[in-house]
Amino acid sequence: MTVKAYGAHAGDQPLEAMEITRRAPGPHDVQIEIAFCGVCHSDLHQVRSEWPGTLYPCVPGHEIVGRVSAVGAHVNGFTAGELVGVGCIVDSCQHCEDCDAGLENYCDGMVGTYNSPIADAPGHTLGGYSQRIVVHERYVLRVRHPEDQLAAVAPLLCAGITTWSPLRHWKVGPGHKVGIVGIGGLGHMGVKLAHALGAHVVAFTTSESKRAAALALGADEVVVSRDEDAMKARRKSLDFILNTVAAPHDLDAFLALLKRDGTMSLVGAPASPHPAPQVFHLIMKRRKLAGSMIGGIPETQEMLDFCAEHGIVADIEMIRAEQIEEAYERMLKGDVKYRFVIDSASLAGERSA
Amino acid sequence: MTVKAYGAHAGDQPLEAMEITRRAPGPHDVQIEIAFCGVCHSDLHQVRSEWPGTLYPCVPGHEIVGRVSAVGAHVNGFTAGELVGVGCIVDSCQHCEDCDAGLENYCDGMVGTYNSPIADAPGHTLGGYSQRIVVHERYVLRVRHPEDQLAAVAPLLCAGITTWSPLRHWKVGPGHKVGIVGIGGLGHMGVKLAHALGAHVVAFTTSESKRAAALALGADEVVVSRDEDAMKARRKSLDFILNTVAAPHDLDAFLALLKRDGTMSLVGAPASPHPAPQVFHLIMKRRKLAGSMIGGIPETQEMLDFCAEHGIVADIEMIRAEQIEEAYERMLKGDVKYRFVIDSASLAGERSA
Repeated sequence: MTVKAYGAHAGDQPLEAMEITRRAPGPHDVQIEIAFCGVCHSDLHQVRSEWPGTLYPCVPGHEIVGRVSAVGAHVNGFTAGELVGVGCIVDSCQHCEDCDAGLENYCDGMVGTYNSPIADAPGHTLGGYSQRIVVHERYVLRVRHPEDQLAAVAPLLCAGITTWSPLRHWKVGPGHKVGIVGIGGLGHMGVKLAHALGAHVVAFTTSESKRAAALALGADEVVVSRDEDAMKARRKSLDFILNTVAAPHDLDAFLALLKRDGTMSLVGAPASPHPAPQVFHLIMKRRKLAGSMIGGIPETQEMLDFCAEHGIVADIEMIRAEQIEEAYERMLKGDVKYRFVIDSASLAGERSA
Repeated sequence: MTVKAYGAHAGDQPLEAMEITRRAPGPHDVQIEIAFCGVCHSDLHQVRSEWPGTLYPCVPGHEIVGRVSAVGAHVNGFTAGELVGVGCIVDSCQHCEDCDAGLENYCDGMVGTYNSPIADAPGHTLGGYSQRIVVHERYVLRVRHPEDQLAAVAPLLCAGITTWSPLRHWKVGPGHKVGIVGIGGLGHMGVKLAHALGAHVVAFTTSESKRAAALALGADEVVVSRDEDAMKARRKSLDFILNTVAAPHDLDAFLALLKRDGTMSLVGAPASPHPAPQVFHLIMKRRKLAGSMIGGIPETQEMLDFCAEHGIVADIEMIRAEQIEEAYERMLKGDVKYRFVIDSASLAGERSA
């Protein structure tokens, strides 16, 4: 079945309208008509070949929401008409220790929603900048938010789970003081989720201009990280730091803010390494520098249900598919509050209501 | 009371015999006649001013064993004649969260056994390269080993607890695969302790010549870390790595050996930073890079009791105080199996039996 999509034929070419093929649903597949797809920084890195190994044509997009239009014969969990989501993962080995633990994101056989080799044409996965996707039911999430929030749910599938998973893994909750570094697509979700989990949230930004917005998102305090006195005043005060900044920066400035046994988890992968952290900061208070990548399928469902219950969605700006290059340029400048979402109706040339 | 000691008057001068003053025991103090003192790499860094802030005269030494010769009026736990030890800590604030948790090593008011400012002359602590020391009872450890093992117990007070504390904190035991990086003063204790705790121990060394010795210490496998194939074969196989190497080296090579959720804890502080680790290695498997510094007093006692019960001591080479400069030079070349211990009798010019 051929559907409309938006993608690139090479790293140095702009994204453009194209047609792609989706397989007919197999026995365990769910076919989804995509309503909205969030725009993640990873999309830009991959489609522009800033990360190695991009397979063309490249159709990015892994923050997908839509409606089930058909299910395979053996699918029990979903029926046509339901609101669903698909995140960064569309398959995995399904039998390793990680998969058994519901941590498909750490499976060596994880199949990404785009740019992973598969048998379907053209030989690799194609993402959510498209009208339809067909995904094994294991990797399909139920969306329990009201339908009018659907576009703003899309970014939960990557930005949401990428921040939720470390917050939960390190048991953030009432009584904790948590730092969120970087108030962008990931960070703004980190603030909302840590606040909803009951923690005292300290937002760190390089920009004084984000202070009011960060407070509105749920931060209890906002610290401009260039303010040395403000940083000094927070030394040894935080239980956990979620660092969403992918640009290389001074990790020591934040490690020094952790209490004994505190952890800073990085969720952004910089193109070039951060300056080397001082071992001193780790040793003196038994601190940990950790990483975390997206999240598993069960915890993604947990996050979506938690967000539905607490009325949490992303703050978004809707765009049409043909505005994607402009949106990328604005993302690079940090000029988005806080996530672009593509209205999939625009792929068919339609104007949304 | 004046006693004989060995120390330096400046960073560029060799250690020499000197006399120092010890206070009369206060109500909570234990006075100890030092029998042996281990020689730690930190001693060399501090006395030679390779670390900042060395106070002179500097008498190093924080792996102290000896016999109680007097106790203060309010001391209940110790009586004259008992075998005891003193490690890296001789005081702390005694009322912070860290002290309350028995983690005096992380107290901001921790007083090191040497080079920490105190009221006693000459205004800073003087360590175990001396005949006697007077220490608050809280920081005195009981030695339950047979007396003929006393010299080999000395290094447990720093090298032992520095490796024991992270092994215990990260719950190393049966069913775990544990890497010990560096087979020196710290590493040889790490191998012995991890083995005695029931873990499968993989020793990493740069030197093929240490293979047999590492196996004899209790390693189940020995990997020469320059052997790329051997390293590759261990990828994603270890639950925990205790990295004892203070010289700057490639941390990524070891991080890649950790399973999902594995931790590598550093216990050596390099003079210049390690090359920056790739965030990729942390993110892909939710790995942690951590630090750990010595250990608290209760866990030091736990370690000593465990070692007494399991017949564990350090492998030592005994020296006389006047051989200390020679011993430092051999330490710098890695030419010691695995710890020098000063026979305190030599301070009085005596030959030991």
